[in-house]
Amino acid sequence: MTNPDSPVLVIAAGHVLTVDRKDRVLRDHAVVVRDRKIAAVVPVEEASRRWPKAERLDLPDHVLMPGLVNAHTHLAMNLLRGLADDLPLKAWLEDHVWPAEARWVSDEFVLDGSLLAIAEMIRGGITCFADNYFFPNATARAAAQAGIRAMLHPPVMEFATAWAANADEYIHKALALHDDYKNHPLVSVGIGPHAPYTVSDAALRKIIMLTNELSVPMPVQMHVHEAPHEIGEALASDQRRPLARLHALGITGPSFQCVHMTQVNDEDIAILAATGSHVIHCPESNLKLASGYCPVARLLDAGVNVALGTDGAASNNDLDMFSEMRTAAILAKSVAGDAAAFPARAVLRAATINGAKALGLDAVTGSLETGKSADLIAVDLGGLESQPLYHLESQLVYATGRHQVTHAWVAGTPLMTGRVLTTLNAGHIAQRAAEWAARISPRN
Amino acid sequence: MTNPDSPVLVIAAGHVLTVDRKDRVLRDHAVVVRDRKIAAVVPVEEASRRWPKAERLDLPDHVLMPGLVNAHTHLAMNLLRGLADDLPLKAWLEDHVWPAEARWVSDEFVLDGSLLAIAEMIRGGITCFADNYFFPNATARAAAQAGIRAMLHPPVMEFATAWAANADEYIHKALALHDDYKNHPLVSVGIGPHAPYTVSDAALRKIIMLTNELSVPMPVQMHVHEAPHEIGEALASDQRRPLARLHALGITGPSFQCVHMTQVNDEDIAILAATGSHVIHCPESNLKLASGYCPVARLLDAGVNVALGTDGAASNNDLDMFSEMRTAAILAKSVAGDAAAFPARAVLRAATINGAKALGLDAVTGSLETGKSADLIAVDLGGLESQPLYHLESQLVYATGRHQVTHAWVAGTPLMTGRVLTTLNAGHIAQRAAEWAARISPRN
Repeated sequence: MTNPDSPVLVIAAGHVLTVDRKDRVLRDHAVVVRDRKIAAVVPVEEASRRWPKAERLDLPDHVLMPGLVNAHTHLAMNLLRGLADDLPLKAWLEDHVWPAEARWVSDEFVLDGSLLAIAEMIRGGITCFADNYFFPNATARAAAQAGIRAMLHPPVMEFATAWAANADEYIHKALALHDDYKNHPLVSVGIGPHAPYTVSDAALRKIIMLTNELSVPMPVQMHVHEAPHEIGEALASDQRRPLARLHALGITGPSFQCVHMTQVNDEDIAILAATGSHVIHCPESNLKLASGYCPVARLLDAGVNVALGTDGAASNNDLDMFSEMRTAAILAKSVAGDAAAFPARAVLRAATINGAKALGLDAVTGSLETGKSADLIAVDLGGLESQPLYHLESQLVYATGRHQVTHAWVAGTPLMTGRVLTTLNAGHIAQRAAEWAARISPRN
Repeated sequence: MTNPDSPVLVIAAGHVLTVDRKDRVLRDHAVVVRDRKIAAVVPVEEASRRWPKAERLDLPDHVLMPGLVNAHTHLAMNLLRGLADDLPLKAWLEDHVWPAEARWVSDEFVLDGSLLAIAEMIRGGITCFADNYFFPNATARAAAQAGIRAMLHPPVMEFATAWAANADEYIHKALALHDDYKNHPLVSVGIGPHAPYTVSDAALRKIIMLTNELSVPMPVQMHVHEAPHEIGEALASDQRRPLARLHALGITGPSFQCVHMTQVNDEDIAILAATGSHVIHCPESNLKLASGYCPVARLLDAGVNVALGTDGAASNNDLDMFSEMRTAAILAKSVAGDAAAFPARAVLRAATINGAKALGLDAVTGSLETGKSADLIAVDLGGLESQPLYHLESQLVYATGRHQVTHAWVAGTPLMTGRVLTTLNAGHIAQRAAEWAARISPRN
């Protein structure tokens, strides 16, 4: 319930991008925040009249927009950023990433890596993320400390890591974490069966059975059809494409997110569209690892919900959703052979409300609408790189850098003000990262 | 001649990326500047000992590197940034860009647009650019005022614009500009026959004849094989691919730059390699306009010099060479189907020394070597987005934004110090851009 005596914050801006159902782009409007929620989106003059005593922030050169939703990442891998690049996928994984993970990943590593990643994300306008990584309890603590909105998908796989010994233990730990955070205002927990080729039918059936028992559906996020070899190997051993197998098991549906999907045929699209499954598109990771091209325009035409993710910093090598939006926008045009494909407005939806929808959080976040959580960012368009300004949505997608984000709020709490983080100690976090680097690669 | 009494500037940095023949990456080195040139690249301690009285700048968290060379752009189109996006190429050109150009392009438009673009480029670490646009005299004045290094390729085409009536007049004006600037320390003039389909054999023969008379070869930059239709139409009318026609005319060679080259077969590569012609790769423009994919790895394997350009801001929509490096790096991997293709070191060469070479300026700029012009930038790697730092070249290509450039020098003169432009008035430039936008799109 809204308390009429609660303090009110009026954020007045030159532009407001709502990403609501009508995709309204408003001039000289204010977002009014009360009790952690958006109380109104109204003309500045009306806000001044209705809330004359409110705390007030004036950002005439800025656009207010929903905080970005990074729908797929592996936060703690920030500590491995740039450890090994320009390598074939197999050598990258087997000679560098897996050995480094086996040697170093721990609760402490994941806490420090998650804090580094969250600080980077807040500074880049991301107010909600979906993570898949070991020791998710540490990531949950980091998110809670930062005050950022999080959906954690603890991984499930058949082989042992420092975090769990087998599929049953991964599942057990994921459900325990889900239980720990079931009443947390910002941190939610789903489950992340790693990929069709690393999780057995038995484990997937168990996940389906257990998640079906919950009163609220648990988001399930999985790497699906990331690269061509995955399809070939599945057809050889199972005579089905991986998505067809997942669909036959019954895991597809509105709580199921397929990450990557660079290998897509008409049958795949029909399954995704019919079941309401989501696609999380990670264009920069797909390009850098030479995995293939996700046909975004075809998916959208078929009515599939497509969200965007950065993937982890070990493969990308940053968590920059502005860059990801731009790459997604221009790559989709080339893949479709149509310069009109995936226009700026659709890209902005993919990076906000579509991500929220994929994570089951669209009632709470992803757009600037009365009643939703006050999860928003301010982006400065006053610099000469933003001149001239003909079309706001074009400018945001094609000519804006993440460093132009000046303010970020989650549930009405400021996480960054004038480029300064308010809930995290940036200097301490960077220092911890440098210490990890010195341990991991001492000759550097 | 170096004057031993000339003032010396010692720029001491945590890292120096030389892009010399050995691609040396140095820790705790200084670039020593005297008489507009690089006098030495030595350890900080040695610089302190040899030049104890020098002016000194200490940048321990920074990398010093050659200023970036933006080898293809249309500066004045910055005033049309974002005017029309997400449109098929034909509608974009015919319904938006050409009408706007016909209505507005003038000496004043080009001066203001060029200043806006140059300010953006300096702030993004670009110290040398190659332009192709009408009223190049205005761009030359803007470059000279800014103190940036410029290679202008005045356009040549068969049809009339506000700048010239026919091919002869374009050529005449280009040569006159070349003569005006032949002794200028920073501004050079080549020639820019627009594309195979807009310039006749007669005009190309005249360009070849006139440029052959010059004592120093004149760089010739042309849009070649930008999109598939260009090939099909040429084969239908001329029974040859456009590059084969250009080669038969005799325009290929070490002074010839082919911009785009998204349509490439073995015969094309053989011509480029045998003649020493250069390719200017503009990956973001090619993606956004759905033009096709330049096979960078194949070109480099054949020994072709590949440089990078942003293209104009009307199609890109910024002049961000850090973004262009990153896109080029990751796209080349996907196009080659090899995550090891176009590694960071090669990308950094493409964005610096290869560009200088394509423009015939590699004796002067493009690397940090004793005797070259002091054209360099400092990039701040102290922020948390740059942590941890395992490999400098990876970090620069895959995880660095242009806003991290703090300082830029051309011929030893600072153009930006601590993010502040020193030769241009950013506020005035942005104001002029806003005034143009109000005229061009008054309802906005």
